[in-house]
Amino acid sequence: MRRCVQTFGPNIRLSFPAVCFVWQIAMIILFGVFVRYNPESDAHWPEYRRMKNFTDLENDFYFRYPSFQDVHVMIFVGFGFLMTFLKRYSFGAVGFNFLIAAFGIQWALLMQGWFHSLDYNDGKIKIGVENLINADFCVAGCLIAYGAVLGKVSPVQLLVLTLFGVTLFAVEEFIIISVLHAKDAGGSMVIHAFGGYYGLSISWVLYRPNLGKSKHMNGSVYHSDVFAMIGTLFLWMFWPSFNSAICNHGDGQHRAAINTYLSLASTVLTTYAISSLWEKTGKLDMVHIQNSTLAGGVAVGTAAEFMLMPYGSLIVGFFCGLISTLGYIYFTPFLEKHLKIQDTCGIHNLHALPGALGGVVGAITAAAASTTVYGEEGFRGIFDFNRVAPVQGGYQAAALCVAIVFGIGGGIFVGCILKLPIWGDVADENCFDDEFYWEVSPYIWPVLCRHIWHLSIKNDLNNVKNFNYNETNTEL
Amino acid sequence: MRRCVQTFGPNIRLSFPAVCFVWQIAMIILFGVFVRYNPESDAHWPEYRRMKNFTDLENDFYFRYPSFQDVHVMIFVGFGFLMTFLKRYSFGAVGFNFLIAAFGIQWALLMQGWFHSLDYNDGKIKIGVENLINADFCVAGCLIAYGAVLGKVSPVQLLVLTLFGVTLFAVEEFIIISVLHAKDAGGSMVIHAFGGYYGLSISWVLYRPNLGKSKHMNGSVYHSDVFAMIGTLFLWMFWPSFNSAICNHGDGQHRAAINTYLSLASTVLTTYAISSLWEKTGKLDMVHIQNSTLAGGVAVGTAAEFMLMPYGSLIVGFFCGLISTLGYIYFTPFLEKHLKIQDTCGIHNLHALPGALGGVVGAITAAAASTTVYGEEGFRGIFDFNRVAPVQGGYQAAALCVAIVFGIGGGIFVGCILKLPIWGDVADENCFDDEFYWEVSPYIWPVLCRHIWHLSIKNDLNNVKNFNYNETNTEL
Amino acid sequence: MRRCVQTFGPNIRLSFPAVCFVWQIAMIILFGVFVRYNPESDAHWPEYRRMKNFTDLENDFYFRYPSFQDVHVMIFVGFGFLMTFLKRYSFGAVGFNFLIAAFGIQWALLMQGWFHSLDYNDGKIKIGVENLINADFCVAGCLIAYGAVLGKVSPVQLLVLTLFGVTLFAVEEFIIISVLHAKDAGGSMVIHAFGGYYGLSISWVLYRPNLGKSKHMNGSVYHSDVFAMIGTLFLWMFWPSFNSAICNHGDGQHRAAINTYLSLASTVLTTYAISSLWEKTGKLDMVHIQNSTLAGGVAVGTAAEFMLMPYGSLIVGFFCGLISTLGYIYFTPFLEKHLKIQDTCGIHNLHALPGALGGVVGAITAAAASTTVYGEEGFRGIFDFNRVAPVQGGYQAAALCVAIVFGIGGGIFVGCILKLPIWGDVADENCFDDEFYWEVSPYIWPVLCRHIWHLSIKNDLNNVKNFNYNETNTEL
Repeated sequence: MRRCVQTFGPNIRLSFPAVCFVWQIAMIILFGVFVRYNPESDAHWPEYRRMKNFTDLENDFYFRYPSFQDVHVMIFVGFGFLMTFLKRYSFGAVGFNFLIAAFGIQWALLMQGWFHSLDYNDGKIKIGVENLINADFCVAGCLIAYGAVLGKVSPVQLLVLTLFGVTLFAVEEFIIISVLHAKDAGGSMVIHAFGGYYGLSISWVLYRPNLGKSKHMNGSVYHSDVFAMIGTLFLWMFWPSFNSAICNHGDGQHRAAINTYLSLASTVLTTYAISSLWEKTGKLDMVHIQNSTLAGGVAVGTAAEFMLMPYGSLIVGFFCGLISTLGYIYFTPFLEKHLKIQDTCGIHNLHALPGALGGVVGAITAAAASTTVYGEEGFRGIFDFNRVAPVQGGYQAAALCVAIVFGIGGGIFVGCILKLPIWGDVADENCFDDEFYWEVSPYIWPVLCRHIWHLSIKNDLNNVKNFNYNETNTEL
Repeated sequence: MRRCVQTFGPNIRLSFPAVCFVWQIAMIILFGVFVRYNPESDAHWPEYRRMKNFTDLENDFYFRYPSFQDVHVMIFVGFGFLMTFLKRYSFGAVGFNFLIAAFGIQWALLMQGWFHSLDYNDGKIKIGVENLINADFCVAGCLIAYGAVLGKVSPVQLLVLTLFGVTLFAVEEFIIISVLHAKDAGGSMVIHAFGGYYGLSISWVLYRPNLGKSKHMNGSVYHSDVFAMIGTLFLWMFWPSFNSAICNHGDGQHRAAINTYLSLASTVLTTYAISSLWEKTGKLDMVHIQNSTLAGGVAVGTAAEFMLMPYGSLIVGFFCGLISTLGYIYFTPFLEKHLKIQDTCGIHNLHALPGALGGVVGAITAAAASTTVYGEEGFRGIFDFNRVAPVQGGYQAAALCVAIVFGIGGGIFVGCILKLPIWGDVADENCFDDEFYWEVSPYIWPVLCRHIWHLSIKNDLNNVKNFNYNETNTEL
Repeated sequence: MRRCVQTFGPNIRLSFPAVCFVWQIAMIILFGVFVRYNPESDAHWPEYRRMKNFTDLENDFYFRYPSFQDVHVMIFVGFGFLMTFLKRYSFGAVGFNFLIAAFGIQWALLMQGWFHSLDYNDGKIKIGVENLINADFCVAGCLIAYGAVLGKVSPVQLLVLTLFGVTLFAVEEFIIISVLHAKDAGGSMVIHAFGGYYGLSISWVLYRPNLGKSKHMNGSVYHSDVFAMIGTLFLWMFWPSFNSAICNHGDGQHRAAINTYLSLASTVLTTYAISSLWEKTGKLDMVHIQNSTLAGGVAVGTAAEFMLMPYGSLIVGFFCGLISTLGYIYFTPFLEKHLKIQDTCGIHNLHALPGALGGVVGAITAAAASTTVYGEEGFRGIFDFNRVAPVQGGYQAAALCVAIVFGIGGGIFVGCILKLPIWGDVADENCFDDEFYWEVSPYIWPVLCRHIWHLSIKNDLNNVKNFNYNETNTEL
């Protein structure tokens, strides 16, 4: 049985495969020219190891691989399932997330490699497990941006968004890390603030005045909310690995994990409190629980490796849960109404704002750092550049500005490209619906309800007049 | 379209946020006064490391962090999703599990810290990754207790249950580990027996004679059972990490993982066998598969680090699967009918009884230990106290009694507190329904079915007389 | 309300529990006679460690346990959930997967132990974490075979399939690894080609000419496809751990993870491209996304540890995504129509063919190996047998033939056993339905639709004549 209302969607049968093929072939050629194994993953390791007087265990693989796998889960299951909350866009959420990430990590290995891992002896990028983690981080920025435009763009647009997003990210990261020598272990600024403002700016340029026509699809059903909790929990649980993955060996990774663990725990309590306080009879709202509980992990990112102290982490988490939840209640509607920014997943409250806050927390913590607290050697180990603490704090603040400027500027630029009418995006009334890019089993609900509706009309039953097809449709 | 039957639920709009805020602020203050990093997570690590002649890799982080992350997944996804099996309480299952755990780990870090990690030089608790694991273990006890009262209590009650549960746990653990010097690597006694009897006692005090009014909600639907399998499998897969997480470095962790792996594999076979044997035509029951397959992990906990031998682990798992499944078939109905204990998730069969069995297995294995089997050094390494083996066995048995006494006594005490009519719990007819604490999309099924029902009456169609609204409702 | 159509399923109430019990007791006895801890998991480790001059960290546990846990997740959640895509066979998918794996790992520890870990001094098998990984690998072969017969066999048949499958696997693996001295780190040949052809041959012997009667159950619904994506993503994310789990310490594990990561990323792009290119208006098909995206991990298995080079991995992934997706489009229907092989999950395209391809890639890469690329020491470390490279390539090709011969031969043999009419499998019209082996809540959809159908007849409403019970049934 086919859907009764014939649907005419966009045709991406040529453009989408063409882009996939061209870009993948380009990746193969560029990897062929540029990418090789680094000494720790090359078969010459036994000789290298002897030269450096390492044991096998001191291969960076054993320091970072468990964290890498956790980050990998966050990128693919975490971000993917977090966005499955829409009643009829779960395929798009998890499927396009998969596509963006798989393409983005290849391009990120190249872009980040040119900036950070180029061996000037032979002009090759030498990769190891840390590059894989950084590539995952880099696509995280694009996946955050996807959250703002979820359900409103075509897969071709998403690939373009990713290509430019990764490029911008790599430049921004180079400026922040290698030029300004700012520290950003968990990427509050580099990943979250950048990705958040990048997505919001794109969404602003792609504003759809008649998006209300898809309003009935822009919501969740019971089980789609449970699926989204899979994403939330894997993000929440593995965030300590995210923030500690590329920290210094030893105490750096250890402390970053503890700080993140504590900040996230604290955020949960304030999120639940605010969510309950703002609803009649104190009911909780799944949107807040799915998203705001994660804000503490974002905001503690920059300072994760610093001596933030356990109570400092709790304080950061406390305020982030509060601000993020209030953001969902007040700021997202405000953004849509007054600033014409339609933010499907509310990334402003989960990534942009907490990311910016994280930058500020990082700047303050860095400015307040002292050798008394860190020890002479610890201080040099963490702030690996010769500056006094307040100056470092200033550079941290400058880094945050760079991230936001790149996010907004890049977003507007890419948004304008995506506005061209060649990308096969859906009409305003067909947003948030998998039907247009996925083969889906026909949707039985409308059929069944329509059938009952006809029965009712035929029999002219007064007591069923209040049965409304459209409303029913929206609830299933 | 709104639900036809108006529902008047409890109002927790003030009490719940107030408790969250007050407790979180208390945590921040107490952490500020008491909690600091331990030498392995402090920035002075480079100096400490040189003093101890350690490499970076010998930071405890690299021994325990992968296991910690596995345990973390068990606590949040494992326990959370295991309880999503109810057709209309999945938000409560995974959401309140999240809340309890996030609050509990903070309080556990303090309580366990005072008992075990207090630095008497400066009066501070010094935390590292092992404390995080222990905090996760500690909330596991409370989450087990939640299983018994699932769907019948308010979130405020759950926070109270957790506050007292963690407190009792810390005292009980101190007596068992530090006073009696009993061994309990996987917490069969400390976590599972305690948590199980704590929850059952609370459920006994909170007995609801008219719970039958919610009978139609106390069951699963097809997809909620699949969600629950996510919880089951993550618990099952990561149980080797749970039992080995805080074992001795080297062979201790290695052996605990092997023993648990084998015990769990064995349990699966007997669970399937018994489940099939007790049903007409040999059909399997999802309740057994979701729960009893895990009993082997519980029962091997205490003895996991001992030289239980691979076949010993298989034997423990064999009997646990058998007893636990029979428990679901015979004992849970018996408990409800004759002892007035309503045990929603059957924690008696998954945690309380296998935990007690685990304590007995541990006592026997400890009593039978010899330096022939363990080696002189191995024996001293595992039983770090100067006792002959049979005496150690006796202390192990005493530890089990302490766990059960704390569980039952504490549960009755906390149950009485939770019986006060101030906590905003739902009426008997509204149990097992997310509607009262969560914003949920209206439930279309009853509406649709009721509509058809009216159609039928109106047309007086004899051939649809057997269409029954109430029964239908229960099946969706 | 009971299902209207009475169903008479097979009765496995005696045979199934009997097999479970007998086999589990046999396992306990055989483990009692044969299995002990190896020196790294035995309590004598402190003495062994001193003798070998190891630190605790050099216990193999710390090299392999994180990878082991990832593999474990792939086996239980990955394979289990990947098969939940059928609308009404999710219990069977995840539940029987669980059963097969839990039984199989025990038998695999014995079979593989006799071949590889037997201590000739005392006739005992000495197990450690590497044995656990290998046992998980071994059952992977049987789980792949399960994919071909999903929904068409009884649990008793599955246990028989597993018993023989593990036995054949262990022999085949012994020939390939220990006799031919071929290398197969990720098991492209040993696991995937063998498992794939084993399952296809069984399915060929068990051909059901009237399977069309269950056609309405052989498809997905919206949420079952989302559940399947959980399986897909956990397989995809953890495949680098799968291929690197038993590689050489140091650069071997490191390089295998990088190669797999890259190959999988590349596969995703071509899978999406082909899936879109072959559908009207470029829509994507969930079947391809769920399965073909994984083919790159299979095909890079044999060569994962070799110096395949990053671009080499991308090329392998590129062609695998392409071939696998085209396989789903053209080859699966061809197999069913012309070769009488009914392959429920399309394992031919995901495992058999990519596995064979992986063997070929491995043979070519091995034949092209040189000490210039690997270094003298690296070359000896990886190809631990004294052969020149082209000869090694020949042995690799021979190994692939062994795997395929064992798969096909073993499959036909086991298929004939499973064809005996004693195993309690369902009739052709009852395939792909959990109803016959699981207690399931009655299926409301047919009831409701039938009800409406009767209403329509009664009222003889012309405008609802097109409402068709059978079609509706298939869509829910």
